[in-house]
Amino acid sequence: MKAAVLDGIGSKFEVREVELDKPKSGELLVKVAASGLCASDLNAVDGKRKLVPFPAVIGHEAAGVVVEVGPDVTGVVAGDHVIMSIVPSCGTCEYCKSGRPNYCSTAGNAMSVGGLFDGTSRLSQNGEKLNHFLTVASFAEYVVVPVSGAVVIPKEMPLDRAALISCAVLTGYGAVINTAKVKPGSTVAIFGCGGVGLNIVQGARMAGATTIIAVDVTQEKLDLAKKVGATHVINGATSDPVAMVKEICGGVDYAFEALGRESTIQQAWGTVGVDGTLILVGLMKNGATITLDAGPFVNEQSIKGCYFGSANLRKDVPALVKSYLNGELFLDELISERIGLEGLNSAFDRLRAGEGARNVLVFD
Amino acid sequence: MKAAVLDGIGSKFEVREVELDKPKSGELLVKVAASGLCASDLNAVDGKRKLVPFPAVIGHEAAGVVVEVGPDVTGVVAGDHVIMSIVPSCGTCEYCKSGRPNYCSTAGNAMSVGGLFDGTSRLSQNGEKLNHFLTVASFAEYVVVPVSGAVVIPKEMPLDRAALISCAVLTGYGAVINTAKVKPGSTVAIFGCGGVGLNIVQGARMAGATTIIAVDVTQEKLDLAKKVGATHVINGATSDPVAMVKEICGGVDYAFEALGRESTIQQAWGTVGVDGTLILVGLMKNGATITLDAGPFVNEQSIKGCYFGSANLRKDVPALVKSYLNGELFLDELISERIGLEGLNSAFDRLRAGEGARNVLVFD
Repeated sequence: MKAAVLDGIGSKFEVREVELDKPKSGELLVKVAASGLCASDLNAVDGKRKLVPFPAVIGHEAAGVVVEVGPDVTGVVAGDHVIMSIVPSCGTCEYCKSGRPNYCSTAGNAMSVGGLFDGTSRLSQNGEKLNHFLTVASFAEYVVVPVSGAVVIPKEMPLDRAALISCAVLTGYGAVINTAKVKPGSTVAIFGCGGVGLNIVQGARMAGATTIIAVDVTQEKLDLAKKVGATHVINGATSDPVAMVKEICGGVDYAFEALGRESTIQQAWGTVGVDGTLILVGLMKNGATITLDAGPFVNEQSIKGCYFGSANLRKDVPALVKSYLNGELFLDELISERIGLEGLNSAFDRLRAGEGARNVLVFD
Repeated sequence: MKAAVLDGIGSKFEVREVELDKPKSGELLVKVAASGLCASDLNAVDGKRKLVPFPAVIGHEAAGVVVEVGPDVTGVVAGDHVIMSIVPSCGTCEYCKSGRPNYCSTAGNAMSVGGLFDGTSRLSQNGEKLNHFLTVASFAEYVVVPVSGAVVIPKEMPLDRAALISCAVLTGYGAVINTAKVKPGSTVAIFGCGGVGLNIVQGARMAGATTIIAVDVTQEKLDLAKKVGATHVINGATSDPVAMVKEICGGVDYAFEALGRESTIQQAWGTVGVDGTLILVGLMKNGATITLDAGPFVNEQSIKGCYFGSANLRKDVPALVKSYLNGELFLDELISERIGLEGLNSAFDRLRAGEGARNVLVFD
């Protein structure tokens, strides 16, 4: 099959013919229909976060059609449509047993060695191992993934938009609904309106927040933020977001930072009102520190980390698909461009430059 | 009456004859029975936090007997025993109306000008205004306080131990019960075992935490921590608390920092396990910043500020008095020394040096 192979940090994607082994126990072979381009892919490409050994096949925000199920798989059959996620779970490790499958240590170990749950890879080129990115590796025509990371979705759900749900939507919407538990009538500020940030905006709308302030430096993204639910937008390139948020509502109940940058985290912290919460959705590079004004802690303000929107795959994915199909969740608007495998390098250049909401790799 | 007057930051207390006006609308005149020496008093004395204009009468962790009630006071009569607290509330400002009386802006404004709710002082010396500390000013034989900051307690409750409840116990116990909402079976680490920290320890015991790790650099305080509920103690002067906590339980569900120091906040942050919470109970000096490792946020760890144990005076004070009277809350053990007004200067020297759990000023 064809896959976009990345030989190392800073390399260009090269589209090559590679080999993909058959699924082993508990695994699915899936024909990829679409795969979004996410900041975590970019972080791996640029080496901002160490997420996979190289050479590797990147890509993780994916949806497709099951071609074959491996041994010991129940509940999924060939022909099923699935989204694939970066939070598969073994069900038997300490974290899974304590009800925190998103921190599954078996999955974590698999990801760190670029393999699946048994630590080995199904991907190779001329007999040389290729690494799986976060157990998904979806910049390829086909993938083999752990069944616990896949969720079957109804066939009326378009697969390119389903791909967005598997990461950007779960992360953004989940940060609002699961991590922050935003209450109706709340005031919310969102720093960064890319694929994740826009889903924070619409998560806030769906949670019933009544003041939703979107901050970005790109007018195009701010326009999109308005379309999906922002009541106010602030262009951080030309205005001081902290002063403007204070003017709008004094201080917000919830601020979300979707960029993983210290400077915007500090701005977001400055917009939080008495006993409000800052949710850190954007992931910072390995070894990063954050320096914060200690003053707001006296007013019981808090900062909460967020991983993958504290998502519960089995509960959240079906609910989000339903919300899309009934018109409450906007996804069509978020897709800024559809590309092929050859378009990955230039699409990542645009992602790096902060352009567009979501490029999606689509196979026809 | 006699009061210990502080003329400015870094001054010594001087016991002088001062004038105290009669209570105005909504105020009580109370004969002080006892007043604890708290880190917030020390912060004012040393200028670490700007809490009051000078010259002032300090002291705020107090209990006594009502001598006279001002106009418009209901529910309290002369002869009642009361604790007096630093969170009186007007009931009509934006924060009071939104259910957050501990942030009452009327009280905040009063404190910033060293007065009571109408902004004026009842304290003077030879016609010169003296400032009230945090609307209490209890290093004095008598005080005039807002009735909303006082809570009537049963007469069988000893007043010196009741004084501790009014601040150190509410702050420490409240941080566990109200702010963190520690669940039974939890693992907890406490950094700093002074008056507040020891009440975090016993709050954790009362909440049903099963691993309670107390950290301090003074062996005497660690021995006390064991008496009131710690299951493990670590002397931070001779051991690495982060490594030891990890060895004991991998990482705690809740860490509490009771000192307001960046270095111990960083240590405490290092002991928090996956999706655990660090509660900042100790207040830092004005303008302080905290630099934190960003890594743990990926595991959904969080940091929560805490003010006055998120206490609800009307609910928490009666419950704590009952807990003391039925033997569940230990207070006798926390009083390291009883002093008179003349003993304040040397007692603050010992507090500054980190000695003892709680010095209490007692009037006979």
